[in-house]
Amino acid sequence: MSVEEASSQQASSDVVEAVEAIMRRLERAWNSADGAAYGEPFSPGADFVTIRGDLHTGRDAVVAGHQEIFGTIYAGSTMRYQVMQTRQLDDRVVLAHVRAALSTPGGPLAGEGASTITAVLLKRDGGWEITALHNTLITE
Amino acid sequence: MSVEEASSQQASSDVVEAVEAIMRRLERAWNSADGAAYGEPFSPGADFVTIRGDLHTGRDAVVAGHQEIFGTIYAGSTMRYQVMQTRQLDDRVVLAHVRAALSTPGGPLAGEGASTITAVLLKRDGGWEITALHNTLITE
Repeated sequence: MSVEEASSQQASSDVVEAVEAIMRRLERAWNSADGAAYGEPFSPGADFVTIRGDLHTGRDAVVAGHQEIFGTIYAGSTMRYQVMQTRQLDDRVVLAHVRAALSTPGGPLAGEGASTITAVLLKRDGGWEITALHNTLITE
Repeated sequence: MSVEEASSQQASSDVVEAVEAIMRRLERAWNSADGAAYGEPFSPGADFVTIRGDLHTGRDAVVAGHQEIFGTIYAGSTMRYQVMQTRQLDDRVVLAHVRAALSTPGGPLAGEGASTITAVLLKRDGGWEITALHNTLITE
């Protein structure tokens, strides 16, 4: 294995499955408008950068921020996440890039939208948690 | 040290300095409109998500993309980076959040702008490289 490969490996299938399982949890939480469930896969001290460039710190902030948008601008919306790539940076750290597709039925943001997510996951107590997530709307 | 602290430590001063030194290199490269120099601190296989949500992979893509904007929409612009926080995720992996402030003298994007960056750095051959960077404009 070359130095470059050693420093940047495609994650093993079990790690990819763990990342995909977490994204499905987030998808279900979004589509149930459940802020608390959305926050569950995050570390207590996780960092979250929103599509507006705001940096929020902590699972509680993730929960509160999502509960608010689930009840207002994204009420009734449907999210789909697709994991594009997953790299193992170290035994305990995984980097993932995810495509998000959102369908919003009404309000100022009605319609279809898409975004690109960078997620950093940390292994803890045998499971994986999101320790950082950054989301940017895809624009032309 | 608690489990939470162990999984998410404030980086040591030498690591913070290394991250700040890399951001200063990026700043100088931007302000010299030097795409090749901008790409130097990135891993050969680095991932870069732009303010438009595009995912580019590889240092060469970082170089080419920046050389293009340095000659067009961001010609003559001045960048300042401020490292807001730096967390050590593992011996070889550091997570940083950076505020970018950009002043552009003319063209369609003339004026002042700001963005929030998530950067993931990987230790290799004794030094640090950016293996992933994600940038989002700050909007009201």
